[in-house]
Amino acid sequence: MIDSIREPDLDFITQAWGRLDQLTKPPNSLGKLEEIAARVAVVQHDIKPSVDRKAIILAAADHGVVAEGVSPFPQEVTWQMVANFVSGGAAINHLAASVGADLHIVDVGVVDDTSSLEGVRQEKIRPGTANMTQGPAMERDEAARAILVGVEMVREAVAEGVNLIGTGEMGIGNTTASSAMTSVLCRVFPAAVVGRGTGVDDAGMQRKALAIGQALEANDINPDDALGTLAAVGGFEIAALAGVVLGAAEQGICVVTDGFISTVATLTAVRLCPAAIHYVLPSHLSVEPGHVIVLDELGLAPVLDLDMRLGEGTGCALAMGIIDAACRMMSGMATFKEAGVSDEGDA
Amino acid sequence: MIDSIREPDLDFITQAWGRLDQLTKPPNSLGKLEEIAARVAVVQHDIKPSVDRKAIILAAADHGVVAEGVSPFPQEVTWQMVANFVSGGAAINHLAASVGADLHIVDVGVVDDTSSLEGVRQEKIRPGTANMTQGPAMERDEAARAILVGVEMVREAVAEGVNLIGTGEMGIGNTTASSAMTSVLCRVFPAAVVGRGTGVDDAGMQRKALAIGQALEANDINPDDALGTLAAVGGFEIAALAGVVLGAAEQGICVVTDGFISTVATLTAVRLCPAAIHYVLPSHLSVEPGHVIVLDELGLAPVLDLDMRLGEGTGCALAMGIIDAACRMMSGMATFKEAGVSDEGDA
Repeated sequence: MIDSIREPDLDFITQAWGRLDQLTKPPNSLGKLEEIAARVAVVQHDIKPSVDRKAIILAAADHGVVAEGVSPFPQEVTWQMVANFVSGGAAINHLAASVGADLHIVDVGVVDDTSSLEGVRQEKIRPGTANMTQGPAMERDEAARAILVGVEMVREAVAEGVNLIGTGEMGIGNTTASSAMTSVLCRVFPAAVVGRGTGVDDAGMQRKALAIGQALEANDINPDDALGTLAAVGGFEIAALAGVVLGAAEQGICVVTDGFISTVATLTAVRLCPAAIHYVLPSHLSVEPGHVIVLDELGLAPVLDLDMRLGEGTGCALAMGIIDAACRMMSGMATFKEAGVSDEGDA
Repeated sequence: MIDSIREPDLDFITQAWGRLDQLTKPPNSLGKLEEIAARVAVVQHDIKPSVDRKAIILAAADHGVVAEGVSPFPQEVTWQMVANFVSGGAAINHLAASVGADLHIVDVGVVDDTSSLEGVRQEKIRPGTANMTQGPAMERDEAARAILVGVEMVREAVAEGVNLIGTGEMGIGNTTASSAMTSVLCRVFPAAVVGRGTGVDDAGMQRKALAIGQALEANDINPDDALGTLAAVGGFEIAALAGVVLGAAEQGICVVTDGFISTVATLTAVRLCPAAIHYVLPSHLSVEPGHVIVLDELGLAPVLDLDMRLGEGTGCALAMGIIDAACRMMSGMATFKEAGVSDEGDA
């Protein structure tokens, strides 16, 4: 599957900027909006790009590491929030609706049974990861299977016409798993990565760093082995979202990455397949301290900085609105010639 | 008219945060999105705010100061761009459409006749301002009449159900007028304010600073007299947008301010009526150096920083998408109790 992923035609950037510079505005006067439009144009190989069909894949799973007291919320909140997603009461429901994005919710490893909740795709690999402080969170094969869930969901979405995909996640304890992965993949000390997540106090942050330290001792991890790192200290939802990124690259559409956890999933995908980076659009900068580390590792600069730290795909949804505006601008605007507007220098 | 403007009930902020903290998310985890929602809730005096009917008022006018060589574009571009707005070829057409905002275009002082262009509201005070380096750009009475055009347009929009208004402008030479006003109203040297506008070179920037210096000498301006400053070195579109801000405050709806020129108009309105500030939501930070000076003077921190400098209301349109998402979130989300989700500390 990974072997089938190709870089987009990067030379197309010249044609993209050629059009942007002819539109009725001073050159570059729309700043980052033009850069976003140009990136989508390259991926779509079209100087009139469109992202009129948007979907966010929201993967949920639980984490054995919560036994170490790393979250102020009890584990059952994962199931409760999945129920909240399907009944439309969560933040992502309203943010996704505001940009016209569909929401696809998938259970890849929630501890409690979600099969009674209508609208939750059942792809549970196992009811929660094992406690990574005692050994691997999951088997290597389980990580691969969770990745393929994400890949398959993108294939199906694209078959239905989706041309912009986003990542979202829910999983009590998943900032700890993501911090552990960041520590390994970006080679930084756990204490430099861990943050407050959903809101732990200072003692909770120390417990997070301690749990990660124990996990790194309990597991024999090769930092160059992204799949092995994911299996040892990751999570099922992180794996599924890595699959979403790989699936987007395979299908040739852009994928918007959300906050810290989603970006760790993106880094995992890019380590497995470096060409995938060309399909990734960042969204926002989370207040979670590990996020900027992972973004820097990927060379991505987010468009939004709104002090958010919720996850679920909320930053992704907001960025989708900006990306949509960028593509409409590039596709719909008149050129100087078409509009009969005098160009710069005619003064 | 100004005497009728009241502050919103600022104590309502307690009720707004009371609701935000009960919603199914860790407290403050949506950062600035929650702050925006709370501000709109205060203005609307409603813990479930809504901005489902959006409109941008785009005021166009010309500037006599273009005779000093302050723009790389010829003056006829103002008329040409107005034609582009009504035929749907400009950036603002597509950005406004992306957030579902209506666009109201008004000619308050374009040099050429726009009456043949269907969809342009005819409110021309005069065909362009006088060259401010030789004396006042307009009469005090003309400035007041242009302000009332903006006020009246907001009244009509609100009567039609609009609950979020935005500002946009077009006028070759208007960064020079705005820089002159900033220099006076914020008491800074012209050279610290002037920027490249639509794209002048270094020599052009020197001509802008020089023209402003000459205008400040040619006019006897009292910096505490906002209307007098507007008349001496402002523009008809700046006056009309000051009226949009005053009209929004009078009508009790939020107004989104765009880039540098729109924010100078907002400062003018706030100097005329300090209570108006409570109704203003900033949008983006322009690369035009005067913008941050005016924003700081107003105490406003924009939500977007996309290196934009186009005007037309383009930053305003993008911010409207974020404001809409914020209001939908606050109004539509379930509380912990409603959703049956365990709260923090139940771990």
